[in-house]
Amino acid sequence: MIGIDQLIDRIGPLDIGAMDAARRRQDTLTKPGGSLGRLEILSIAIAGMTGQPTPKLVDKVVIIMAGDHGVVEEGVSVYPQAVTLQMLANFCNGGAAINVLARQLGARLVLVDVGICSDVPSGVPTDVSLFVRKVARGTGNMVRGPAMSRAQALEALKVGSEVFGAELARGLDILALGEMGIGNTTSSAAIASCLTGRHPAELVGRGTGVDGAGLRSKVEAVERAIAVNRPDPSDPIDVLAKVGGFEIAGLAGVALAAAAHRRPVMVDGYPSTAAAMVAAAIAPQVRPFLIAAHRSAEKGHSIMLDWLGLTPLLDLGLRLGEGSGAVLGMTLADTACRTLSEMATFEEAGVSNREDSPC
Amino acid sequence: MIGIDQLIDRIGPLDIGAMDAARRRQDTLTKPGGSLGRLEILSIAIAGMTGQPTPKLVDKVVIIMAGDHGVVEEGVSVYPQAVTLQMLANFCNGGAAINVLARQLGARLVLVDVGICSDVPSGVPTDVSLFVRKVARGTGNMVRGPAMSRAQALEALKVGSEVFGAELARGLDILALGEMGIGNTTSSAAIASCLTGRHPAELVGRGTGVDGAGLRSKVEAVERAIAVNRPDPSDPIDVLAKVGGFEIAGLAGVALAAAAHRRPVMVDGYPSTAAAMVAAAIAPQVRPFLIAAHRSAEKGHSIMLDWLGLTPLLDLGLRLGEGSGAVLGMTLADTACRTLSEMATFEEAGVSNREDSPC
Repeated sequence: MIGIDQLIDRIGPLDIGAMDAARRRQDTLTKPGGSLGRLEILSIAIAGMTGQPTPKLVDKVVIIMAGDHGVVEEGVSVYPQAVTLQMLANFCNGGAAINVLARQLGARLVLVDVGICSDVPSGVPTDVSLFVRKVARGTGNMVRGPAMSRAQALEALKVGSEVFGAELARGLDILALGEMGIGNTTSSAAIASCLTGRHPAELVGRGTGVDGAGLRSKVEAVERAIAVNRPDPSDPIDVLAKVGGFEIAGLAGVALAAAAHRRPVMVDGYPSTAAAMVAAAIAPQVRPFLIAAHRSAEKGHSIMLDWLGLTPLLDLGLRLGEGSGAVLGMTLADTACRTLSEMATFEEAGVSNREDSPC
Repeated sequence: MIGIDQLIDRIGPLDIGAMDAARRRQDTLTKPGGSLGRLEILSIAIAGMTGQPTPKLVDKVVIIMAGDHGVVEEGVSVYPQAVTLQMLANFCNGGAAINVLARQLGARLVLVDVGICSDVPSGVPTDVSLFVRKVARGTGNMVRGPAMSRAQALEALKVGSEVFGAELARGLDILALGEMGIGNTTSSAAIASCLTGRHPAELVGRGTGVDGAGLRSKVEAVERAIAVNRPDPSDPIDVLAKVGGFEIAGLAGVALAAAAHRRPVMVDGYPSTAAAMVAAAIAPQVRPFLIAAHRSAEKGHSIMLDWLGLTPLLDLGLRLGEGSGAVLGMTLADTACRTLSEMATFEEAGVSNREDSPC
């Protein structure tokens, strides 16, 4: 608990001097001013986050937190709970979408079992980092009582902060929030409903693809979870404990730690955004370090992004999670920073700027 | 001329069999069905274009055609005409945005001087392919008469087709259309106005960043060019010759040749889209081979994309040209194809599919 408080105290504001320097450099580069659009704005924001006038995003890391959810008993997913573990094994074996994206785009994949019901079988071949830091074997069913205790929520936040610290030591310039957990869009909708005050029906989507009846079950599960647990919207740890998930708590801890170390946090889809909301509710000063990679196809994601004040970079109808959209976002962030750093200035290239008279 | 006609005859329809196979495979991969959104749709489209059920986009090539425009006399750009050549030299030296993007994302850069007023100085160090295939030293001022003769327009189309052929021989799986030419958004607006029937004022934007007076000059230049030359909207070669540019004609030839060889064509911003429109007007069967990388910040681009029936992948406020947005689009196309090819199926990964009963 003291660890998280210390982390929060460390989160500083954006570095205005670095942003000004980046903005001035953008205006000298061989392109019409502003013609790289959001990439220019992004490069200036990342200068502010990192405190570097020409930031380099060499080590791109996606941390995938995985955990199980007791609420799957309510029929909120089309997939069985066992899929959380099976997909973790798929990540270890390189067969999931996030593996393909990480290989293509040069991101380092870090997996964390922060609360899966079963154990990753030993002997699974792995070329990715795997942390086994179970807080418990799945959350409780939030429809019947709290998903976890307050102590467990704080423990999961700490796992996130510690995993971040370990990866920072290996080299980490930008971070993507990834997750895996059957049932976690239901938990995410409950968190978002508590923090935004919007009705669950506005926030609950089809997740992995439930039909009309499944959607009604999800809305009902969220309504009941909130009615049964009465989470206090002014106490984000209380919300997290009562209707959250271990992977969501872990990612909130990752986001807090990243902001404390001035590393940009690329937010992915629906559960990842719920984690970012929890982090921003715990420490509002984390917000300037968040970048929204994409607008998910999941209903309610736009409400969450609006609450965070974020405009997503991409809108590709993704709803996969795993950090998949966030890895695409990290590539755009890298493009933004590389153009800022590597492009020639008008003077260096001997290109006439607009101030010169037309010939 | 016979060359172009033969090319057009070679353009076939999408391969429905390959698309069906790609669609079936998508449904077996370890993700909720449809959860990769537009990337799934894109992978299926590229299967249809290439005729390969699991297409591989190894060789990604951006062809930048460069040419000068006589209409710059009318004060339609904030940059002097010399910048076309200066930027070509910047491309050769690796200092432009497109160089940074090509290096980051693994695209091969091909430069073509198809009509710059001056000559690229010899001795310019180059690590990129440079073709010098000038049709003429800049177009005529379209406000006073045709930009080029019909023979020149056909010659520039042929240059595009020939450069494409040379690059295809080196290995080319997907192509981005790039351009450089001070004044070319004015020419592009004129082409778009002729082909869509929309008024120049709806299509003319600020280009490199002209102010209100400059914008009025651009609209007036386009109106006068159309009034003076009376291009025949039913004859796209006539439109191209009278109000086009050499680089736009060259890119139209590239697009026709790419479609004839079943290679996906990633369309970039405003002038690149004008070239794609010319190609589609010459041969409607080219349309299924076009992918819109992004929506430009340039006014009127959406009208052009609508006319082509294309929905852009990205919307980042870019208005730089050079193929910059198209290289980002090629990376997304690569992601789409890699996930289709490389992801494990539910069976391979031992992941329970939704048909299995929940545990």
